[in-house]
Amino acid sequence: MTCCIAINLDEGLVFCSDSRTNAGPDRVSIYSKLHRFSFRNDRQVAILTAGNLGTTQAVIAAIERDLKTDQERTILNAEDIATIADYVGEISVKTQQKYSPGGAEAGFNAEATFIVGGQIRGNDPELYLIYAEGNHIRASVRHPFLQIGETKYGKPILDRMLRRDTPAETAMRCALVSMDSTMRSNATVGPPIELLFLRRDALSEPAFYRLFEENDPYLMALRAGWEESLAAAFNNLPRLDL
Amino acid sequence: MTCCIAINLDEGLVFCSDSRTNAGPDRVSIYSKLHRFSFRNDRQVAILTAGNLGTTQAVIAAIERDLKTDQERTILNAEDIATIADYVGEISVKTQQKYSPGGAEAGFNAEATFIVGGQIRGNDPELYLIYAEGNHIRASVRHPFLQIGETKYGKPILDRMLRRDTPAETAMRCALVSMDSTMRSNATVGPPIELLFLRRDALSEPAFYRLFEENDPYLMALRAGWEESLAAAFNNLPRLDL
Repeated sequence: MTCCIAINLDEGLVFCSDSRTNAGPDRVSIYSKLHRFSFRNDRQVAILTAGNLGTTQAVIAAIERDLKTDQERTILNAEDIATIADYVGEISVKTQQKYSPGGAEAGFNAEATFIVGGQIRGNDPELYLIYAEGNHIRASVRHPFLQIGETKYGKPILDRMLRRDTPAETAMRCALVSMDSTMRSNATVGPPIELLFLRRDALSEPAFYRLFEENDPYLMALRAGWEESLAAAFNNLPRLDL
Repeated sequence: MTCCIAINLDEGLVFCSDSRTNAGPDRVSIYSKLHRFSFRNDRQVAILTAGNLGTTQAVIAAIERDLKTDQERTILNAEDIATIADYVGEISVKTQQKYSPGGAEAGFNAEATFIVGGQIRGNDPELYLIYAEGNHIRASVRHPFLQIGETKYGKPILDRMLRRDTPAETAMRCALVSMDSTMRSNATVGPPIELLFLRRDALSEPAFYRLFEENDPYLMALRAGWEESLAAAFNNLPRLDL
């Protein structure tokens, strides 16, 4: 499965994803689910992918091909992130229909979901979730994060901690803790973990990016620290009167 | 929906359930999902229910009718908890087949799941999860808790905190925190929350039982304390080097 989280903060956009894919318990692989399209000084775009790997790879390949062959509609000439979300949704639906014309009910599930986020010069950073049907929703001030893939295990900590004005470092730490909880509960979500931060209005600077392997010292310290802190947090809670 | 948690501890058995049922967003009601069968000095049994309310009510009614009419197979004369789990599973499958002979795929989903736990004099306390198909699994030393209904949001905290030798009060607090996380993320899980503790080898004493209404002062203190402790826990975590 997949676990992808994206957060729209005052400071910028956070993207976090695992890298495990599985087509059955004995077809487990490592694939990046974070795809970057960076055009210095003009726009930075990131796409997170979940669902059928054939579909998501075909969609990313089509996006890259459109750029290379200078098509009329590309990530580079779209006027805003919403238009890019629309464009990705259309490619996704077309790809799904090609390989599974009967839809998921007909037996083969080619469905895929995407998170598209980024900033175009002169606009605010924006974040969209694209459903398998191609339509999309936007992250909002009250709900600043979006998830695709295995979303439930890691959601409570995001719900409790994330606000629009959460500092970027705290939000990234929160995404990593959420990812760690998900990996613990779902064996088909796994490392390496990718983490990207697109700072607001920093279109000409290199973005912050890190890849955490399974035994990454920071990830291990975070995991151990969280276990310990949670136990301490429990000890702080009011006792139940038995 | 439903959220039910049961834990098999060295000290005894914990049962925790919400009380919200919904058949569509405009058919929301309050029903207890915790059913107790107590036979002083001999056995204490609790059943948690999830799934189709018609099925779960029919199953509990059948269990009570069998007791009242002194049938050959009842909760009272079963030799162990596994036999009771088998018995509940059989009634459940029979009830589902009566109302949805084509199964869930045929359009109407009458499926239900159960957790059955308790202690019979001379035996250890035991805990079973009964699937919609009527078969069951047991809580183990390595995996001391079982969940039915909406299980994912609340699972990470249980995974991290619960061991067989966790003190009963800590485990109950953990179940309440898990329930609170689930209520926050799924609007179809809601109060009142019921909490039952069957202390090991205390078959003649009244069990600990509490019902928490929405504005229960302890539940509110727990929620506020947990928010605060989590934030503090985050502050304790090693910082990400940006």
